[in-house]
Amino acid sequence: MTSETLSSFRFEVEALSQGARAGTLHTPRGVVRTPCFMPVGTKGTVKAVSPERLRAIGAQIVLANTYHLALRPGSEVVAELGGLHRFMGWEGPILTDSGGFQVFSLKGTATIRDEGVVFRSVYDGSTHTFTPERAMLEQQRLGADLVMCFDECPPGGSTREAVATAVRRTQAWARRCRDAHLLAESRGHDGPQMLFGIVQGGTHLDLRRESADGLLELDFPGYAIGGLSVGEERVAMLDTTEATAAMLPPERPRYFMGIGDPAGLLEVIERGIDMFDCVLPTRVARMGTAFVPGGRLNLRNAEHARSGEPLESGCPCQACTTFSRGALRHFVMQKEILGLQLLTEHNLVHVFRLVEGARDAIIRGRFAEFKRAFGSLGEPGSAQ
Amino acid sequence: MTSETLSSFRFEVEALSQGARAGTLHTPRGVVRTPCFMPVGTKGTVKAVSPERLRAIGAQIVLANTYHLALRPGSEVVAELGGLHRFMGWEGPILTDSGGFQVFSLKGTATIRDEGVVFRSVYDGSTHTFTPERAMLEQQRLGADLVMCFDECPPGGSTREAVATAVRRTQAWARRCRDAHLLAESRGHDGPQMLFGIVQGGTHLDLRRESADGLLELDFPGYAIGGLSVGEERVAMLDTTEATAAMLPPERPRYFMGIGDPAGLLEVIERGIDMFDCVLPTRVARMGTAFVPGGRLNLRNAEHARSGEPLESGCPCQACTTFSRGALRHFVMQKEILGLQLLTEHNLVHVFRLVEGARDAIIRGRFAEFKRAFGSLGEPGSAQ
Repeated sequence: MTSETLSSFRFEVEALSQGARAGTLHTPRGVVRTPCFMPVGTKGTVKAVSPERLRAIGAQIVLANTYHLALRPGSEVVAELGGLHRFMGWEGPILTDSGGFQVFSLKGTATIRDEGVVFRSVYDGSTHTFTPERAMLEQQRLGADLVMCFDECPPGGSTREAVATAVRRTQAWARRCRDAHLLAESRGHDGPQMLFGIVQGGTHLDLRRESADGLLELDFPGYAIGGLSVGEERVAMLDTTEATAAMLPPERPRYFMGIGDPAGLLEVIERGIDMFDCVLPTRVARMGTAFVPGGRLNLRNAEHARSGEPLESGCPCQACTTFSRGALRHFVMQKEILGLQLLTEHNLVHVFRLVEGARDAIIRGRFAEFKRAFGSLGEPGSAQ
Repeated sequence: MTSETLSSFRFEVEALSQGARAGTLHTPRGVVRTPCFMPVGTKGTVKAVSPERLRAIGAQIVLANTYHLALRPGSEVVAELGGLHRFMGWEGPILTDSGGFQVFSLKGTATIRDEGVVFRSVYDGSTHTFTPERAMLEQQRLGADLVMCFDECPPGGSTREAVATAVRRTQAWARRCRDAHLLAESRGHDGPQMLFGIVQGGTHLDLRRESADGLLELDFPGYAIGGLSVGEERVAMLDTTEATAAMLPPERPRYFMGIGDPAGLLEVIERGIDMFDCVLPTRVARMGTAFVPGGRLNLRNAEHARSGEPLESGCPCQACTTFSRGALRHFVMQKEILGLQLLTEHNLVHVFRLVEGARDAIIRGRFAEFKRAFGSLGEPGSAQ
């Protein structure tokens, strides 16, 4: 890390309540209070929500996907148009992933070698190569504030051998990413970036340990836990999260990649996670499903057609303060864009409020009570 | 008209500049400064724009379609959920059409008799009957502020005989609509409604005269000009508009049904029209086309991919103040919902600003200069 980066980014843990942490991540584009849910703006927009609305509903930081933006419109185009913040109309902090997850998970045509990955574009089938150096270059051109190492994320159900190979490759790539990052910083690119290492290892704790130890040697300012939420049992996922978090330095932020269901968020917060992202809240919204206390509500159900009730009583979002369930159902059934907008905003507000509540509770030293009160409302998926 | 209605609705012409008028329509839910473009919220929402955003960009009144709302979710459901304003989340004035236009134009399966129209639903093919009385009942249940008589709108290219038949039927139906309206008012329904008569007659001025004279006998507080913009030559459309407007009482508002292209709006304003609606600005937006000075800009064109320019310089809308053409093109090409939102807001703002500019010019007695300055920017469709 150069001194420039160290002074631009700073993470402070402010409170602990059992395993849960409340902190603040300082970035050149503003602070992020943690724990923090990061909405996903895959192609440069959180689907159905304008940046103005994102600000209004309390988003602190937005995630964007390097894979998609590198292919469409291309990171050079984004750079030419003033960088990702200008492109997205979002002045706050942005995190880009490395493209690795999509390279491996989309279309399944990737060829993985130690040098990098050859894959076919989902857009036009054209062949591309992503290497650690290329992933860093793409992210530098995009210009996000938080950037990720290029890692190998093995699919759920992989053999231990495949996971071990991914751990070793991820470690070698992390070193190359760090070197490319330092080289770019020394040359003085447009803005400082905070580079996260990604711990792999599936649910094998010895492999997680090997991965974490290797990354710690490279001294990243933040660490992500990857390769979970890929189909493993939830208990194994949570046990792995807890054990892996304990392997990471307490003074650095911890980012769990890919969790967004309310119950799951509280579980990983309890296990010392500071940041998380997922398309789930916004994706289920576009299918007509709303997060409500106690679970999920499917507005396609006919029972809501004549309901004058708000979606979630006490929720300050537009959907809940302005519309009845009956009207929202009508918009959903008629595939009106307004329905997508309103439900997406609602689900994000629901998650933001939950995570802010957790943060408050941590600061008051009462996270366990907060989590218990949530749990008594039932498991997700159980409502209506 | 009962005294209640007369006191609730009032129209004042404030200025004349050549044929163009500036006025104010007072309604129980606020004033409408005219000339005024009314965005179309077909199924209870202006597609891709929330009511909060509609207010922010200066919409004064919104139109909704009785045909669609009567079939989905049903006017009884809307009434049960608190009426159309509550249902749509729009507290300002609303105008509903009578359902007539859709009954005749959708699917082409309508059977017209003097009693009313039997038609098949576009939703499920089920058979329904709309009569003048039923159209009024549907609109009473919805509860819009401005409501329309059920009329017969013959398709473009109809014979003179067919148009003459439509004029006579429209007149008979207008009487039945007025009677149903007065009966409902005398019984005291939820709120006062201002009922507009609709002048038919195609481009036959003698039939327009017959239609206008008949409606004037019924003394409607407002008059619409229907049956234009259905494929006739623009010169014939404008000549008919001018002649028909002159047949209507100057102290009543005049509503041209179905025009929304910038050049056309100025032409009908010049001919004494106060209100107009059309899906055009919002529909072309969803196809990637933006109104700009001098015509239209198709963001799908590759030339915009690397353009850092705003869509329209000086436009205060979100799309223009926050995004480059390149970013907007990316959202359009990727079918991102944000692209639909931004272009729809832009086209509405473009039309609102044009019509507000016309109003200003009328008040200053300089409409001709205003229209000439607009004309020098070229005809719509000529840009890019």
